[in-house]
Amino acid sequence: MAKPETVRFAIMGCAHIARKVARAIALAPNATLCAVASRSLQKAQTFAAQNALPDTVALYGSYQELLDDPTVDAVYLPLPTSLHVRWAVAAAARRKHVLLEKPAALDAAELELILEACESNGVQFMDGSMWLHHPRTSHMKQLLSLSHSGSIGNIQFIHSTSTMQTRAGFLESNIRVKAELDGLGALGDLAWYCIGASLWAKGYQLPATSFLSHTSMDLAICGSNGSLHVRDFIIPYQEHVASFDFTFGAKFVDLHIGWNVKPEEVHVANVLPQEALMVQEFASLVATGPDNKWPQITRKTQLVVDAVNKSLDLGCKPVSL
Amino acid sequence: MAKPETVRFAIMGCAHIARKVARAIALAPNATLCAVASRSLQKAQTFAAQNALPDTVALYGSYQELLDDPTVDAVYLPLPTSLHVRWAVAAAARRKHVLLEKPAALDAAELELILEACESNGVQFMDGSMWLHHPRTSHMKQLLSLSHSGSIGNIQFIHSTSTMQTRAGFLESNIRVKAELDGLGALGDLAWYCIGASLWAKGYQLPATSFLSHTSMDLAICGSNGSLHVRDFIIPYQEHVASFDFTFGAKFVDLHIGWNVKPEEVHVANVLPQEALMVQEFASLVATGPDNKWPQITRKTQLVVDAVNKSLDLGCKPVSL
Repeated sequence: MAKPETVRFAIMGCAHIARKVARAIALAPNATLCAVASRSLQKAQTFAAQNALPDTVALYGSYQELLDDPTVDAVYLPLPTSLHVRWAVAAAARRKHVLLEKPAALDAAELELILEACESNGVQFMDGSMWLHHPRTSHMKQLLSLSHSGSIGNIQFIHSTSTMQTRAGFLESNIRVKAELDGLGALGDLAWYCIGASLWAKGYQLPATSFLSHTSMDLAICGSNGSLHVRDFIIPYQEHVASFDFTFGAKFVDLHIGWNVKPEEVHVANVLPQEALMVQEFASLVATGPDNKWPQITRKTQLVVDAVNKSLDLGCKPVSL
Repeated sequence: MAKPETVRFAIMGCAHIARKVARAIALAPNATLCAVASRSLQKAQTFAAQNALPDTVALYGSYQELLDDPTVDAVYLPLPTSLHVRWAVAAAARRKHVLLEKPAALDAAELELILEACESNGVQFMDGSMWLHHPRTSHMKQLLSLSHSGSIGNIQFIHSTSTMQTRAGFLESNIRVKAELDGLGALGDLAWYCIGASLWAKGYQLPATSFLSHTSMDLAICGSNGSLHVRDFIIPYQEHVASFDFTFGAKFVDLHIGWNVKPEEVHVANVLPQEALMVQEFASLVATGPDNKWPQITRKTQLVVDAVNKSLDLGCKPVSL
């Protein structure tokens, strides 16, 4: 089937993420993969074989050769961040459109060089934040944009986290912890999404803080092998049943296009409301003689409250306990 | 029905939360409400009438009169935090068990006075964190305590927030913003729960930080009238459908024993995976001529990344954008 107005993409660099994007280029109705380049021809050939790329895809042993190919309309660059400014500018100078893996650059000054190169050469620029293109994202945006009384109101608090458990050896050898290749580390990798999500939620207004928000009571606990989430931990939505959910041992499936499990939801029924259970527990301790568990819980909570207060007084400096 | 080993509770102070706890005392099988005191007898009478308390409940116009009542076994104190040390110590000295509304004290030194008074008089102490008594909480704890390969692993990241939208006039007149009454403000009110939840999750080890966690990608957006949550915003659990949930206009029901609505879950289907939608969007912009939307999104994200980096360099001082 002939694709209408098909853009011919080339991939510069055979990073792990390039496998997912090669598949995405094949799936997109207006795009086709025409070339792949790596630092050696052998690496490009291995990538082509591993991903069963068609013979029509040209393979190059250097990025420059790829940029010299006049059949290439656009390049996808999953190179280490420190190489972005060099190769994105070079690609734009050869009138190639630039799809650049995040983080876009080591800093805003470098990014300006890339954006200026794209603009002056009349080519499209986009970074590789895929989640912005999911229809769920625009569905959420539509809901957030409502202004009547049934809406979210003014957005006043945004929380976003992204964490991952690294494999053995990651902290010694992964590109994200090599300052000379990806100088931003976790800030450019996971935090790029969290920062992007906060900007997205506020329509790309640069951030300012506020402490007036609608009722929320979120608890998220992440461990080395899973996570647990509860949204109504202080006052359950309903009086006689409450739920939470958890995911243990979740992994991305091949190509990172989904997860092997979804969170499991657990419902816990209670005959008495939690405040009556509190009174019951208190009264039974009165009957049996005082315990030390509950005073200790309060003591530790208060110690941390004090430490937070002290830290605030010190201009948010760390305080030891 | 006669209650076995019934503890006779008195309520000292007719704060809003006392209505909920009066009901909890009535519901608990081993507790009964025997007295209520306020700063004036009329206030105590009004509270008794509004909550349809039985005639057997003694009403007092001062806290001291209540403490002099020998039929009172235990007191529940929902007084302003600044009054806790005085009245909790006084209650313990009269051999009354103490159920103390949170925050327990203005600081750990004050709390020690209360805990010492309770201990030396052999009475039970407990703070009013109700959620610790919900069976969901012990169910979660049990799950978190597992140590085999199907468990959460070592807990390495805990996030907890609690926010609320205040009514008109709150910031001018509510007790929580009056330093002479509740000197801790939001730190003692909502943050008490968040701090408590973090301590609870780690078995009451005092906190230390770490940045090695299992995969998570949470986004929570709170507005003045609602909130929106998504757990898999970067890579959806499944390739062809993704969900989020939201609550708009949620309120606590009377007595704050539940919510008027539960979050609504929305499922959004997508034919192409998000990375293919990204490529499709990029390719269609290549066909129509470059836009400025995507470069701007990247530019703003990078500006915030730079600001975070600068703030880290400055020891977490605020940085203007």
